[in-house]
Amino acid sequence: MTAYKDLTKEELLDLKNGLTKEFEEVKGKGLKLDMSRGKPSKAQLDLSMGMMDVLNSGTPLIGEDGTDCRNYGVLDGIKEAKQLMADMMEVSVDHVIVCGNASLNIMYDAVSRAMTHGILGSTPWAKLDKVKFLCPVPGYDRHFAITEHFGIEMINIPMTPQGPDMDMVEQYVNHDESVKGIWCVPKYSNPQGITYSEETVQRFAGLTPAAGDFRIFWDNAYGIHDLYEEEQDCLLEILAECEKQGHPDMVYKFSSTSKITFAGSGISAIAASEKNLKEIRKSMSIQTIGHDKVNQLRHVRFFKDIDGMKAHMKKHADIMRPKFETVVQVLEEELGGLAIGSWIVPKGGYFISFDALEGCAKAIVAKAKEAGLVMTGAGATFPYGKDPKDSNIRIAPSFPTPEELMTAAKVFVLSVKLVSIDKLLEQAG
Amino acid sequence: MTAYKDLTKEELLDLKNGLTKEFEEVKGKGLKLDMSRGKPSKAQLDLSMGMMDVLNSGTPLIGEDGTDCRNYGVLDGIKEAKQLMADMMEVSVDHVIVCGNASLNIMYDAVSRAMTHGILGSTPWAKLDKVKFLCPVPGYDRHFAITEHFGIEMINIPMTPQGPDMDMVEQYVNHDESVKGIWCVPKYSNPQGITYSEETVQRFAGLTPAAGDFRIFWDNAYGIHDLYEEEQDCLLEILAECEKQGHPDMVYKFSSTSKITFAGSGISAIAASEKNLKEIRKSMSIQTIGHDKVNQLRHVRFFKDIDGMKAHMKKHADIMRPKFETVVQVLEEELGGLAIGSWIVPKGGYFISFDALEGCAKAIVAKAKEAGLVMTGAGATFPYGKDPKDSNIRIAPSFPTPEELMTAAKVFVLSVKLVSIDKLLEQAG
Repeated sequence: MTAYKDLTKEELLDLKNGLTKEFEEVKGKGLKLDMSRGKPSKAQLDLSMGMMDVLNSGTPLIGEDGTDCRNYGVLDGIKEAKQLMADMMEVSVDHVIVCGNASLNIMYDAVSRAMTHGILGSTPWAKLDKVKFLCPVPGYDRHFAITEHFGIEMINIPMTPQGPDMDMVEQYVNHDESVKGIWCVPKYSNPQGITYSEETVQRFAGLTPAAGDFRIFWDNAYGIHDLYEEEQDCLLEILAECEKQGHPDMVYKFSSTSKITFAGSGISAIAASEKNLKEIRKSMSIQTIGHDKVNQLRHVRFFKDIDGMKAHMKKHADIMRPKFETVVQVLEEELGGLAIGSWIVPKGGYFISFDALEGCAKAIVAKAKEAGLVMTGAGATFPYGKDPKDSNIRIAPSFPTPEELMTAAKVFVLSVKLVSIDKLLEQAG
Repeated sequence: MTAYKDLTKEELLDLKNGLTKEFEEVKGKGLKLDMSRGKPSKAQLDLSMGMMDVLNSGTPLIGEDGTDCRNYGVLDGIKEAKQLMADMMEVSVDHVIVCGNASLNIMYDAVSRAMTHGILGSTPWAKLDKVKFLCPVPGYDRHFAITEHFGIEMINIPMTPQGPDMDMVEQYVNHDESVKGIWCVPKYSNPQGITYSEETVQRFAGLTPAAGDFRIFWDNAYGIHDLYEEEQDCLLEILAECEKQGHPDMVYKFSSTSKITFAGSGISAIAASEKNLKEIRKSMSIQTIGHDKVNQLRHVRFFKDIDGMKAHMKKHADIMRPKFETVVQVLEEELGGLAIGSWIVPKGGYFISFDALEGCAKAIVAKAKEAGLVMTGAGATFPYGKDPKDSNIRIAPSFPTPEELMTAAKVFVLSVKLVSIDKLLEQAG
């Protein structure tokens, strides 16, 4: 393969002609494909249908400790659900509050609460002139949307293969007291699939924030979402690490079963220090009488315990693995050596991150759409939707069927090629 | 019956002696009774066990319009759940957003959102020197807890048999721009069981608030919670009324199935004008990807439609009616004519409100506790937990069994009598 940049203008134009014909053919098929969101596929959702049978009119909906799960009460989760989520989150049960159907909502509430009430006695953020959050990029658009919604200034922190650039993180956190938080997806990061290295986690835990109310927003969304049994990324547990380094209150850890059982009908949890949880419970007791305990019970009865949950995740992996491999294979076969894009091959999570030539991402997404393939909007992986290099594209291979995915991947690489050629021609002048 | 105040000191002392013996006997029984919270009883919860059977692993969890309820998506509720909640709330489906398991959470979020973002372009309340809410009293402690949590000043508005004192409401709302809201439980009010009269609702709809971002927080928690089929209170629909009077945006209406199916595992909804809903959806889209659609589907499949839901409510009424009647009967038989307390006999809802002699409520609740009966804390029905007259006690007859309830009611009246005698003796000097 010759890198596109080494081709002559004539060669590029020739190539373009051929690819354009190919593209027009694909376009003519009237495809309707979607690689935009990290949605589980029908086959994955089917894995959890048994959850609809574990409770029925003959089942007493009574928790281990006698709690009638149908009634009011129990603010922070039934005992057995706390245990399950604690095991999943690798923390002790005292460090967990089980919440409603979405960890996103817990994160939103955490920021909202800090805005109106501060954290552990600090000034409410809404009363400060300036509040900033660090945002490892590329990252998760819904995280950035929360901080944007509350008028919090977001600062891009480049990702490295070991996680966020920790020199930069330390520089900001330890010296700027307006920096109040950082968004992290520490395992199989969204969208790159990078798992923070041991050193990275230790440096996180070793931060000495200028702001006493600085919090690490540790969204471990893909903690058990490995693709390969024999080759799993390993993430150091942050709560224990923070405690070890004398900063037990510095982190909020989030997780949910959204991509384990039913997206949108799962259970979620926050893990944090006792002090943090006490404050959260206090505010939660104003907000709700309690979350859906019947759904908590349903999850526990379905999985029984963490081993059951992990066994279940292997079935997910069996569905996801070939999809990831298809996309990676197409990328490698079609783009390998062309030097018009790069990607990381993840060992878990929900995404593949693609970096196009600078200034090409938007055009590629638009081109793909022309042929009926919806991708995540270019820029979405950056705060304010602004990718300074217009280069990153998030690929979400989970939702389409394997057949659709093969077609989608081909439409994608075709779009990458065409837009890249145009870019190179433009640069050649 | 002679009113206690007409008895001589000696007669009161005599009476006290006898009642004290009675009380000691009851105390000796080591009772453990609870009339403190508006929790459905086991028998009521059993009514909804069929809900656990309507979805199973063989049921496609697909909505009317093809939505896979198991997956992400659909911010404001599946079509059929919106229809059900709209019918229950007596509004059109366009005016409804279906949310999670608790309307309390929607109310909290509404206040929280106004604090950080204002309402329809107004200044965020957190940025104002003073924000006030009107609180019809006695009222619902969890409402007051929300406004207290956000540092909003609460102003007591006396209830009348027709609803809140509307002269006072108009005076405040129409002339004080720091008054941003009022908490209402318009049908079978908590705790008095009063339904706002037609004139009251019309005067609400006719308010001309000094603050453009004033909102009526209309918590129609007991909209279909009638005790008697033939004798139901009728409440004018507030959204339509507000629209008619040219103030469509002035009201947020809340409801849930918490006391229809499973408390804590129901579905909730907010109804409001298009403009309001647009703003709420925008903020909700940051907060969550969507609420639990499987539970929405479960509710619709169980009830089918509003008629099914209403038929279900008759079964609740059959359980609740004798309980209310037991309490009222004991109150009438034991306290009638004694002039040491008054109460309203409600036709629905969850509570009976008891007004003791001034300065006696706290002592009565404490006395009852001595004999093993837990009542709602005296003062709880007022903002800041402060009943200026120390007179109001909320009786929640729903949770105990009928047998327990008879005993509980007797312990209660015994406590009322003893504390009242002490009060009268004290006043006699």
